[in-house]
Amino acid sequence: MEGQNMKKERRVVVAVDESEESMYALSWCLRNLISQDTKSTLVLLYVKPPPPVYSPLDAAGYLFSNDVIAAMDKYGCEMVSSVMERADAVCRDFGIDIKVEKKVGTGEAKDVICGTVDKLGADILVMGSHGYGFLKRALLGSVSDHCAKNVKCPVVVVKRPKN
Amino acid sequence: MEGQNMKKERRVVVAVDESEESMYALSWCLRNLISQDTKSTLVLLYVKPPPPVYSPLDAAGYLFSNDVIAAMDKYGCEMVSSVMERADAVCRDFGIDIKVEKKVGTGEAKDVICGTVDKLGADILVMGSHGYGFLKRALLGSVSDHCAKNVKCPVVVVKRPKN
Repeated sequence: MEGQNMKKERRVVVAVDESEESMYALSWCLRNLISQDTKSTLVLLYVKPPPPVYSPLDAAGYLFSNDVIAAMDKYGCEMVSSVMERADAVCRDFGIDIKVEKKVGTGEAKDVICGTVDKLGADILVMGSHGYGFLKRALLGSVSDHCAKNVKCPVVVVKRPKN
Repeated sequence: MEGQNMKKERRVVVAVDESEESMYALSWCLRNLISQDTKSTLVLLYVKPPPPVYSPLDAAGYLFSNDVIAAMDKYGCEMVSSVMERADAVCRDFGIDIKVEKKVGTGEAKDVICGTVDKLGADILVMGSHGYGFLKRALLGSVSDHCAKNVKCPVVVVKRPKN
């Protein structure tokens, strides 16, 4: 059995998005997992949804004009910046001097998160729980459920308290 | 946003059973969540399965003689002692001086765990992942899935590495 003296540098991935739940999960992670352990690297992972359009050469390419595509791209980039800025603010609030890496993926959140966690050889994955109701969860499944089942490392699912 | 100075005494519940996964989850918890934080209380929770017999006054009471019931009770108690002793050994190995409470419940693991966590107002629940295959999980569901969805506090699902 491994003792605490063998504590090593850990790579903690936090999946962030525009939800309050994910920012709460990040602050929970800083308070409970990172804290004074400055040897850890915090990886902030944001997943952009897959582009909803086909290439202009595709049969369905007429759906959106280039202007619309450019506007959507711009919106996506602004969303990334906004989420990452909020995440930075949460980290600053804790005043801990840790290594922070930022990663942005594109695709289905559950697949990109699992893929990135495995590729990075992460030690812990932290996610917010959106706390969908029964029906929505039953129909859509849940990103955190999927990740808890499919990644190799421990997964923390953090719920935001109601009050 | 709450800073690390507000770190308070936490109550960390670890669900333990006779599996290697749960002992790994306990050692993960000590290494990653408790560590030097001696203000936390560690609650070891073991759930005995519900008794498979009816009372002797019940119509189905003939199924097991009193001797068999006594033997099963004894086996149950021995299992509790054995699991708690292993858990104690894991804690000792870390050489951390923390408060440890032991609780034993009886019933369906998922219900007893969720009920106990909420009743204790626990701050974190840590569980091993049994890593059933797809079919078994689809048929039986998973205790950790259920708990991650239903308790109010953050839940850590710890997988034991294969090597």
